[in-house]
Amino acid sequence: MKDYNTDDKIAALATPWAESALGVIRLSGKGCISAAGALFTGHLETGEARKLLYGYIRDPESGENLDEVMAVPFRPPASYTGQESVELYCHGSLPGLQRILALLFRRGFRQASPGEFTFRAFVNGRMDLTRAEAVQEIVSAKTVRAQSLALNRLGGAVEGRINHYKNLLLECAAALAIQLDYPEDEVGEPLSLMDKFREIREGLKHLADSYREGRIYQEGAVAVLAGCTNAGKSSLFNLFLKEDRAIVSDVHGTTRDYLESWISLEGIPFRLYDTAGLRRGEDAVEQEGIRRSREVMDQAHVLIYVVDGSRGLSREERQLMEEKGQEWLFVWNKADIASRPVPAGLLPVSAVTGQGFPELEQAVAERVLGGAASSGAEGIIDSLRQKELLDRALTALGKVEEAVHNGLPVDIQAMELQDVLQALGEITGEVSSGDILEKMFSGFCVGK
Amino acid sequence: MKDYNTDDKIAALATPWAESALGVIRLSGKGCISAAGALFTGHLETGEARKLLYGYIRDPESGENLDEVMAVPFRPPASYTGQESVELYCHGSLPGLQRILALLFRRGFRQASPGEFTFRAFVNGRMDLTRAEAVQEIVSAKTVRAQSLALNRLGGAVEGRINHYKNLLLECAAALAIQLDYPEDEVGEPLSLMDKFREIREGLKHLADSYREGRIYQEGAVAVLAGCTNAGKSSLFNLFLKEDRAIVSDVHGTTRDYLESWISLEGIPFRLYDTAGLRRGEDAVEQEGIRRSREVMDQAHVLIYVVDGSRGLSREERQLMEEKGQEWLFVWNKADIASRPVPAGLLPVSAVTGQGFPELEQAVAERVLGGAASSGAEGIIDSLRQKELLDRALTALGKVEEAVHNGLPVDIQAMELQDVLQALGEITGEVSSGDILEKMFSGFCVGK
Repeated sequence: MKDYNTDDKIAALATPWAESALGVIRLSGKGCISAAGALFTGHLETGEARKLLYGYIRDPESGENLDEVMAVPFRPPASYTGQESVELYCHGSLPGLQRILALLFRRGFRQASPGEFTFRAFVNGRMDLTRAEAVQEIVSAKTVRAQSLALNRLGGAVEGRINHYKNLLLECAAALAIQLDYPEDEVGEPLSLMDKFREIREGLKHLADSYREGRIYQEGAVAVLAGCTNAGKSSLFNLFLKEDRAIVSDVHGTTRDYLESWISLEGIPFRLYDTAGLRRGEDAVEQEGIRRSREVMDQAHVLIYVVDGSRGLSREERQLMEEKGQEWLFVWNKADIASRPVPAGLLPVSAVTGQGFPELEQAVAERVLGGAASSGAEGIIDSLRQKELLDRALTALGKVEEAVHNGLPVDIQAMELQDVLQALGEITGEVSSGDILEKMFSGFCVGK
Repeated sequence: MKDYNTDDKIAALATPWAESALGVIRLSGKGCISAAGALFTGHLETGEARKLLYGYIRDPESGENLDEVMAVPFRPPASYTGQESVELYCHGSLPGLQRILALLFRRGFRQASPGEFTFRAFVNGRMDLTRAEAVQEIVSAKTVRAQSLALNRLGGAVEGRINHYKNLLLECAAALAIQLDYPEDEVGEPLSLMDKFREIREGLKHLADSYREGRIYQEGAVAVLAGCTNAGKSSLFNLFLKEDRAIVSDVHGTTRDYLESWISLEGIPFRLYDTAGLRRGEDAVEQEGIRRSREVMDQAHVLIYVVDGSRGLSREERQLMEEKGQEWLFVWNKADIASRPVPAGLLPVSAVTGQGFPELEQAVAERVLGGAASSGAEGIIDSLRQKELLDRALTALGKVEEAVHNGLPVDIQAMELQDVLQALGEITGEVSSGDILEKMFSGFCVGK
């Protein structure tokens, strides 16, 4: 990888570029302790590993103090990157941080590329690729659930499962090898081999399928409120926001045609849209608003159609329920003042009293996850790279099974099996290419 | 101070609330190591002070890991606050940081108020008030020069000077005390006492006067570009920005009537305004724009009046130069294409070729600082509180001098002298009131 020479001394601000109490600068690379030590008034080079030292960052040319910091040396292999590293805990002053970085760059450090610290951790065997990917997934998680799933992956939840199936495959490969060497002895029963393959296939399939859930937790789902004007969509929208102020971003009409905001339901981040009322608008502006609302509706993972319970179902709405009854979520709003009984297939809710709202939230979350959220402890993937490699492994495994089933020569079976192992090896990074690594790490934060 | 109980266990995020590689949570207060240790998988309580420990923050109720962190204990008095403290270096994940803080708040910690860590450092004698104020001044510095001056103050540059004059005053007080006890002996010559007072007065005056410079470095100065339409104000504005991309914030028309942006010249932060052209506008909107431009011009520390060199000076401009020649900076723009010689009192510049621009920058900076910037090592103040107390000390010192000069009784001289000492004592915080402290620290970052 062109920019990823692992011997260079790299430096990066690991905290956001904004005024605050503290700013952390990370350094890594061979000789970085002595290079940083030359700019520090404390004794970094002789300092105990992982022990904070108090001092000033001093420009050795001008003799000027640039900042008062705590500095800590890490010595290999006990560091994040597995190589010599230093962390500097500085005052969160923008000109101060800028000066320290400029000094470091003058003194042989270069700006770290995105993810370069984690890349070095991978190269130096401190973590496999599933854990490395989890590092960034933790940072970019939008909800507690997404962060928690990524933390499990960082702990090795995915790596552990991949390795488990890899070991089973290696056992199968060994059995095939014995058949190759001693073709007369029927050592491995083809039937028991097929059982193992099935177990592996089911496990890998389960992991590949978890990608959908992983993605939803990480990227979020789209929920759209639709319905006639005055059905109370905006009141429900506000109620969704109120229930979850913590994660709500600024609410603003991005196009003046619908409102949108992030909310969190059962740990799932949702981008919630409040669309323009669905009626034949009288003027062109409103028509355009409705057209855009329909575009948003087409992207919805969950469409919440709001019926005005105080007015009852219109003929069009009855027809809609027949068409979309399975697909959409129909809500009977204003249940507190509706005199009619709740028609079948509608969820009674009142945006005013809040009645029925917890049930609505649960229904929305269930629509997205299909009712059954995994515990996450067994590993849920959230990486398209991993998903594609699992699919490749499954395709290759299908060929192995076919070869065994059709009684093809053992050496062909063994060869196909190597393809499965190869795909799994790429997931954890035993086998890797520069292109893939570069693509993977370029999506990281600088300083990670 | 109502919110500043110094025994409470406090917690705060010390880094900005944004996704990044790292987020740092600071804890302080009696028992905080054991309280945090109960939520950490490593051995924090028995851990060596200032040594980083690897582990997970784990919710003891659910047993769930909330984040993978490095934790470090600090034991009194060797900590920032002078009391038991812990710092947690976490992944910079918003839901992760939120969860850890929520757990801490459930387990006996409370959210730290702004500046509360530094307040504790002051209360526990880790720093005087001039250093405490410098902590926040470092963070909010907009330029390298402002950060550097604040760092000097943190190092004790102002405290040292105040203490120096305090010691001189104490010597004078001792001399007066001897005169009180042994009125017959003429121990101290009134003349030498007057010499000392003059030295003290000059020193304190110098420090009080440095406030103007300190403010300009910290808060910035206002520079305004004015002149006829088409004189090239906007081109010069862009040239100022280009020269200093690093510190430039978003340029946008805040009121549609003028553009503004931060630039840095010779270490001084400037808010640079580009005003509407000064001519009698034909419509009401333009008139309003010119009125607002004039408001901005009235606030200017430096007004740069741009003349179109290719057209020469108009009659009105000649008149303006007569009126404002000393006050404003007159610039002869388009010097590269101007056929006329540069009239006296105008600085030739070309926004196109850049000629004369370095001289213009220097002239602008000099206008603000009066040509002579201090080295900063002797301490430059940047606190209205300190300035007002210095003024109070100077007034009281004037009374002492008057009393000595007029030969008033020695006990009256001694009493007046106590007022000077009191004012200086308030600067460093030997004497302080809750109100003043609360006002001072409320302007701090949370986490400082």
